[in-house]
Amino acid sequence: MVFPWHLNAHFDGFLWTLSIHVPFARYVAMNKIKTIKRYHIDRVYRRDQPRMTLGRYREFYQCDFDIAGEYDPMIPDAECVRIVYEILSQLDLGSFIIKVNHRNVLDGMFEACGVPPEKFRSICSSVDKLDKTEWEEVKKEMVEGKGLEEAVADKIGEYVKLSGHFELLEKLMSDMGLTAVASARAGLEDMKLLLHYCELFGVLDKVSFDLSLARGLDYYTGVIYEAILTGDATMKDGEVPAVGSVAGGGRYDGLVGMFDPKGQHVPCVGVSIGIERVFSILESRAKEAGGKGIRTVETQVMVASGQKNLLEQRMKVCTLLWNAGIKTEMLYKRNPKLLNQFQYSEREGVPLLVIVGEEETVKGGVKIRDTHTREEDFVEMAALVPELNKRLAECQHSERV
Amino acid sequence: MVFPWHLNAHFDGFLWTLSIHVPFARYVAMNKIKTIKRYHIDRVYRRDQPRMTLGRYREFYQCDFDIAGEYDPMIPDAECVRIVYEILSQLDLGSFIIKVNHRNVLDGMFEACGVPPEKFRSICSSVDKLDKTEWEEVKKEMVEGKGLEEAVADKIGEYVKLSGHFELLEKLMSDMGLTAVASARAGLEDMKLLLHYCELFGVLDKVSFDLSLARGLDYYTGVIYEAILTGDATMKDGEVPAVGSVAGGGRYDGLVGMFDPKGQHVPCVGVSIGIERVFSILESRAKEAGGKGIRTVETQVMVASGQKNLLEQRMKVCTLLWNAGIKTEMLYKRNPKLLNQFQYSEREGVPLLVIVGEEETVKGGVKIRDTHTREEDFVEMAALVPELNKRLAECQHSERV
Repeated sequence: MVFPWHLNAHFDGFLWTLSIHVPFARYVAMNKIKTIKRYHIDRVYRRDQPRMTLGRYREFYQCDFDIAGEYDPMIPDAECVRIVYEILSQLDLGSFIIKVNHRNVLDGMFEACGVPPEKFRSICSSVDKLDKTEWEEVKKEMVEGKGLEEAVADKIGEYVKLSGHFELLEKLMSDMGLTAVASARAGLEDMKLLLHYCELFGVLDKVSFDLSLARGLDYYTGVIYEAILTGDATMKDGEVPAVGSVAGGGRYDGLVGMFDPKGQHVPCVGVSIGIERVFSILESRAKEAGGKGIRTVETQVMVASGQKNLLEQRMKVCTLLWNAGIKTEMLYKRNPKLLNQFQYSEREGVPLLVIVGEEETVKGGVKIRDTHTREEDFVEMAALVPELNKRLAECQHSERV
Repeated sequence: MVFPWHLNAHFDGFLWTLSIHVPFARYVAMNKIKTIKRYHIDRVYRRDQPRMTLGRYREFYQCDFDIAGEYDPMIPDAECVRIVYEILSQLDLGSFIIKVNHRNVLDGMFEACGVPPEKFRSICSSVDKLDKTEWEEVKKEMVEGKGLEEAVADKIGEYVKLSGHFELLEKLMSDMGLTAVASARAGLEDMKLLLHYCELFGVLDKVSFDLSLARGLDYYTGVIYEAILTGDATMKDGEVPAVGSVAGGGRYDGLVGMFDPKGQHVPCVGVSIGIERVFSILESRAKEAGGKGIRTVETQVMVASGQKNLLEQRMKVCTLLWNAGIKTEMLYKRNPKLLNQFQYSEREGVPLLVIVGEEETVKGGVKIRDTHTREEDFVEMAALVPELNKRLAECQHSERV
C-alpha cells in the first residue's frame, strides 16, 4: 500500500499529525476513497514543543492499522482485535489483555446513572484516568471538580468495576436502567457480536469487555480498544516496566466526513500500536536476558578466515552464499584477525561462521562454526549451501536467528 | 539498523536533504561513529520550490546503501557494485549495466590532456552530460563556452570513447601521458582491484569501466558508479521508457570530516537507488504485461462463500489459516456475492480461494479454487493447510504470488 505522501508536503510545508486516525481519515477524504484497508509504519510530527527530557520529540514513529468502508456490523472491528492479538503475541511482550468497550454503552451508562448530557464528555475523561488512578480520586474529581452529584458518581463507580465476557453482557442486557437507553441497547448488541466474532477468531481469552475503558478522543463512535501489558511488574530500577498501554483505537465513523468538502460518509475502524514503547520494552528485555540488546543486523553467516591471503577465497564463498539467498557478511579487511571475526559474530548474534583455511581448501571444503556452541565441522564445498540452510532452519526453530 | 531520526527534527524543525550521502555523512559525524553499514529507504525533503508538473515535490523517497569505516582498498567499494547488481537483477527491470570510473583517473585524464587544473571541475561537469548529449555538442561547450583549446578537447574526446574491463585497464596503464600523473596511477590500481573483486563477486559481466562517467558531485574522492537500464527503448507514447540512470554513487572520504567539529576522518562509499523512478518503471511494465499494475496486497488466500449464513464458517477457516501463518482475507460482509469474491481475487491477484459451502461442510471439508485456472477441488479440513502450503509454494515457483 503506497501512500501519496507528497500530497502531505503541502500543508505549510509538512503534515503535522493531530492524533491517531486523523491523517488516515484525511487521506481517505482527499482521495475520495470508499473502501481501503492498510497498515502504516512511519514518522509523524507533533506540533507542540518537544520535551527532550521526557523523550517527547516533534518527530516520532507511529504504526497504525485502519479499515475504511461500509460493511456488515463488527466484522472489521473484530479483525482489528485479531490483528492486535497477533502483533502482541508474536512480539512476545509477555501477557496482555485487550480491553474493549463501546461509546454508546459508555454514554448509555452515563445517562442511566443520571449524568447531565452536557457533562458526558467531561465525566468520560475522568473515567479515562481509571487505568492510572484509584476510583476514590476519580470520584473526587467528578464530584468536587466537575460538580457531579455524589450519588451519580457512586452509580458510575458500580459500573466501571465491571469487566468480563458474555456473563457481563447478560447482566447489562437485563439492567433496566441501561437498556432503557436505545443507543445503549444498540451498543450492547454490537458488543455481543464483537465478543462472538472474537471467539470465532480464537482470541476471546485475551479480550475483556471493560466498562472502565473510556478513551479520551471525541471522535470515537462505536467500539473502542486498548491493549494493556499485564506481565512482570517486578523490574529493577531504571528499567522500563513492561506494563501499561501498548495499543489503542476504535471506530470513528464521522471523521472522514469532517475532511471531505461534501461530507462523504466513510465509516472507519482502526488501531494504533505504541511502536516506540514496544521497542523500548523489547530492548530492555533483550538486555536483561542476554546483556546484548536486540539484533540490529539479520546476517546469518559470517565468512571468516584465520590465515593470510585468503581474501579471494572468502569473496568466492560470499558470492556462492549470496547467490543462494543466504544473508552473508565478511569483514572488509584483507587479512582480518580470526578473533575479531568471532567477536563480531558473537556481538551481532550471527549464528554461523564459514571458515576458509588452506588445509580445508586442499580438502575441497570449509569449516562451519556454530557461534553458540563454538563447535566446528568440516563440510565439502558442494554440500555447504544445503548444510547451512539446514542449520539455519534449526536456528530459526530454536529462535536463535 | 535504527536511525535516531528525532535528532534530525532539530535543524529548524526538519532535516532538509542537500544531496545523496550528505544526511548519512552528517549522521556519522554527529554520532562520532567509526564504522557502520546501513541501508535506508525513507522520505527526504528538498529545500527548493516544488515543481508539481514535473513530479518534483519537496518530499520524495530515497533509498541509500552506505558503508563507513577504515578498511582495505576497494573491498566495500566492490560490495556496493554487488548490491546494485542484486537489486537490479531481483527487480527484473530488464538489462542493465553498472558503469564505474574513478575521480583520480578522471583528473589524471584531464591533466594528461592538458586541461588547466582550475578548469577540472568545470570540464568534468561537461563530461557528465555525455549520457544525454552527443560528443560534438559537449566539445562545443568545452571550447566555446569554457575556453578550452580544441586540441585538448579532442584528446578528451578520444578518452571518453573508451570503456571495457581489464583490456582497457592494460591500455591505460601503458598510456605514458596518463601514468605520468601519480594520482592517475593510483586510481588505475584501484580500478584493477575493483574489477578483480567484481569478477570474484560474479558481477563483472554487468560492469563497465567507462571513462565518460563523471558524476557531477564535488565530494567524490575515489570510485564512482552509475547504473543504467539499457533494455527495450521501443515503447509507446506516454510510457515511461525503461532506460536511463537508476542508481548512482561513489566514494566520499572527506564528507564526514566536513560535519565533524574536530574534522574526524571517516571514509565512506555508498549508492543511492532512484526508487521513485524504479517504481514508475515497474508500474508501467506491470500494466503493459497484464493491464493490472503491480499487486498492492500480499494476500495468498481469500476465504469465500456463495451461500448465506456461512459467515461463522468463514471466520473459523480464516482463524485456522491465520494460525498457520497463511496470509488470508475475507470480505467484511455477512453474505457477500460469490462473484464479488472471485472478482476481488482476480483484481488483487490473490492466487487461491477457499470456498465454504453447506454441502462441503457436511462432507467435512471445503473447496480450493485456483484463481488462474478456475479449477475447484474438494479438500478435507484436516488436509487444508498442508494442501494450501503446497499450492502456494508452487505459485511462488511460477512467480504468480
